[in-house]
Amino acid sequence: MTAAPKGNLVVGQSGGPTQVINQSLVGVIEEALKHDVFDEIIGAINGFAGILNRDFVDLRRESPETLEAVAATPGAALGSCRFKPKDEDCEEVFEIFRELNVHYFFYIGGNDSALAAAILNKIARDRNFDLRVFHVPKTIDNDLLVTDHCPGYGSAAKYVASSFIGSDMDNRALPGVKIDICMGRTAGWLTASAACARRGDSDGPHLIYLPERPKSLTEILDDICAVHESNGRCTVAISEGVVGPDGFEMISSPVIADELKDLGMDTILESVTVMGAVEIAAGGAAFDAFGHSQLSGSGALGDFFANALKIYWHRRTNKKLRIRADTLGYAQRSFAGYVSKVDADEARLVGQEAVKHSINGEICGSVALRRIGNGENYFSEPFLADLGEVAGLGKPKKDQFRPVPDNFINENGNGMTQAFVDYALPLLGGLPPKGILKAAPLHHKPTSAH
Amino acid sequence: MTAAPKGNLVVGQSGGPTQVINQSLVGVIEEALKHDVFDEIIGAINGFAGILNRDFVDLRRESPETLEAVAATPGAALGSCRFKPKDEDCEEVFEIFRELNVHYFFYIGGNDSALAAAILNKIARDRNFDLRVFHVPKTIDNDLLVTDHCPGYGSAAKYVASSFIGSDMDNRALPGVKIDICMGRTAGWLTASAACARRGDSDGPHLIYLPERPKSLTEILDDICAVHESNGRCTVAISEGVVGPDGFEMISSPVIADELKDLGMDTILESVTVMGAVEIAAGGAAFDAFGHSQLSGSGALGDFFANALKIYWHRRTNKKLRIRADTLGYAQRSFAGYVSKVDADEARLVGQEAVKHSINGEICGSVALRRIGNGENYFSEPFLADLGEVAGLGKPKKDQFRPVPDNFINENGNGMTQAFVDYALPLLGGLPPKGILKAAPLHHKPTSAH
Repeated sequence: MTAAPKGNLVVGQSGGPTQVINQSLVGVIEEALKHDVFDEIIGAINGFAGILNRDFVDLRRESPETLEAVAATPGAALGSCRFKPKDEDCEEVFEIFRELNVHYFFYIGGNDSALAAAILNKIARDRNFDLRVFHVPKTIDNDLLVTDHCPGYGSAAKYVASSFIGSDMDNRALPGVKIDICMGRTAGWLTASAACARRGDSDGPHLIYLPERPKSLTEILDDICAVHESNGRCTVAISEGVVGPDGFEMISSPVIADELKDLGMDTILESVTVMGAVEIAAGGAAFDAFGHSQLSGSGALGDFFANALKIYWHRRTNKKLRIRADTLGYAQRSFAGYVSKVDADEARLVGQEAVKHSINGEICGSVALRRIGNGENYFSEPFLADLGEVAGLGKPKKDQFRPVPDNFINENGNGMTQAFVDYALPLLGGLPPKGILKAAPLHHKPTSAH
Repeated sequence: MTAAPKGNLVVGQSGGPTQVINQSLVGVIEEALKHDVFDEIIGAINGFAGILNRDFVDLRRESPETLEAVAATPGAALGSCRFKPKDEDCEEVFEIFRELNVHYFFYIGGNDSALAAAILNKIARDRNFDLRVFHVPKTIDNDLLVTDHCPGYGSAAKYVASSFIGSDMDNRALPGVKIDICMGRTAGWLTASAACARRGDSDGPHLIYLPERPKSLTEILDDICAVHESNGRCTVAISEGVVGPDGFEMISSPVIADELKDLGMDTILESVTVMGAVEIAAGGAAFDAFGHSQLSGSGALGDFFANALKIYWHRRTNKKLRIRADTLGYAQRSFAGYVSKVDADEARLVGQEAVKHSINGEICGSVALRRIGNGENYFSEPFLADLGEVAGLGKPKKDQFRPVPDNFINENGNGMTQAFVDYALPLLGGLPPKGILKAAPLHHKPTSAH
């Protein structure tokens, strides 16, 4: 620890925006405004990219009213980027920071942003450059290491759970199979939050699939058919990152491709070829670095399951089935006007805390959350975690994030446990009520005809 | 007008559920509970289908608490159906109603439901069967004839506008082209509501396409490229029912197919063939009654535009463009916990009004809304409209709904006018605030280095 030097502060935002990332930005600004140690409070437009482009704004000139309105607005008010700095980028940042007398850097973002901050921090230490580097956490994916949960998750999870309450009530009214694809490429936290929509035994989602549990296509189709056969309908939550038995994403998994051939559903695979051709025509590549086809259609995964189920069910029953698939899309992270208050408050807090730590002698760190009480007594407190540890610095990519733990996933790998719901529900800050008619049969003879 | 006979009441719900259709159901029930003329208050499960199956529930046995919770819940609490009754179905309904002493029938739904009620009513009059038939309006499509607007629209429009506020802020943070496909097959009302998300000149959606204005693909692609070239980004709202120059839905329009061939984008068409093959494998048909291919993938239309734009932009600039497409999906009509209070109140009111009319001597009708004040003084009043007129009874299908009028659509046919926003905004019952940083450049030299 060293005494906090007087100097300027730079704050930036990075990665996918969320509904509450601007709360954290405003938390940083409002706390910084309280302390004389900061001269300029500078915003970097589009994160690291903005620093390198010297694209800076003067955040002291924002009114309190604007800041409060920004805090309540989704997106990333300073603009975002996806940028992994190389050594030479860091050197350039130091040069610019030295010139501008910047001694404080706050980076608001998820895993990649923590890593970018950790890299910058490490090189600053190596070069003896007096820069305090703090990562302010946000990610709807909830997959940062160390922390109990991540700001941004609660609001996204509230959106997903509310969407499933509605989706399942719709499916009750016009019964069939409804498949909703949720965000979360590497970890299933957000998809899992759909479980919070369940209240009674008949409520959906009836099945939930996460990337943490590899599945064959047949396993998933058999599950859906079984639920539909016993319930007369089925609501399903599937993570966009769901993987086949070989660990590759379902739609580009060689094992799943073989399974489709065995099932005689080659037609479904043709769409992969089509998308590859489009990528080539647009100057891209049909296959990624690992040789897997890039199928990135917005509804591709939902259609993949819906089409497979359509054929599978028809063969099994010789009947048609009402099947609908939706991909919940960007609204999960950006829907305006519907946030978790718990989440919004925590997002504001982690921004404020990062600034407090920076002037209390800490050199670097990531603000994490520790859960104190749960259920109706839910309460969390912030603490400063090791930046390198949160970023998974030096670890292989696959160990840089936190998957959903085993005790949160049911035995069949197709649903969540009560332990998960107990964990997640307080973060959503309340869900809308769900009313269902008692629907007592009209069993007595009505009054006789006139 | 004849005196209201003492007897039983049947209420049913029909068509696509909405966020507030249960308000109307509860409006019918709570009003009916006040009047001695009704003996049983009977719910038909799944609308007409439930009547024919004698699948009835006793709505007097629901507690006020349950009813209030149901009113606030999306879906259709009695279950829904899509059913156009034939003459013989109506005869069977009369037989069942006669047996059960039913003299009042309330049908909550959209265009098809109004038509079903009108058919039943007409035959009841022909047969001299003493049945009072009332249509209670709901549709997120807002395309019923006669009424100023339809219960269900305000909440769906609020969802769409809030989604676009978020979608556009996200697109501001990570700039590119964002295409969102909105519901509304025949009329563009719901897609149009995206315009309510705009506050300032830089706000999206920058382009809005409705079925009311046929477009070539090139017109749409050129529009998007032009906006992106001047703004550095573009947010687009497209109705799922958007049509080509020949009036056929974009993705199955022969004229658009020719255009794609001329553009050398045949690859995009291949996905149509793939989907056709899947339909056949699932026991369906690759082509509909008109010989058009059935491309019903959940994200198909969004991907269609995204893929075409990807290729088009690459040819034009030799660069890649960040393009994302979402299909807003069923959440538009079913998202839980986020409704327009104006809409919820009106939905309740039309249910109550229908019952009042039925005992005030009216034989049949549809409850419509008339706008009295607008803007901050918005106010509406219900009135009883002619059932046959609302249903478009005897009119060709295409004249049974109300399209968005010309003065609501801009000259280029790619956006809405202020007159539309003035019409729609009061129905949404408020939208979340949108805060944008002033972002004053850091123009003065920061303090010198220490």
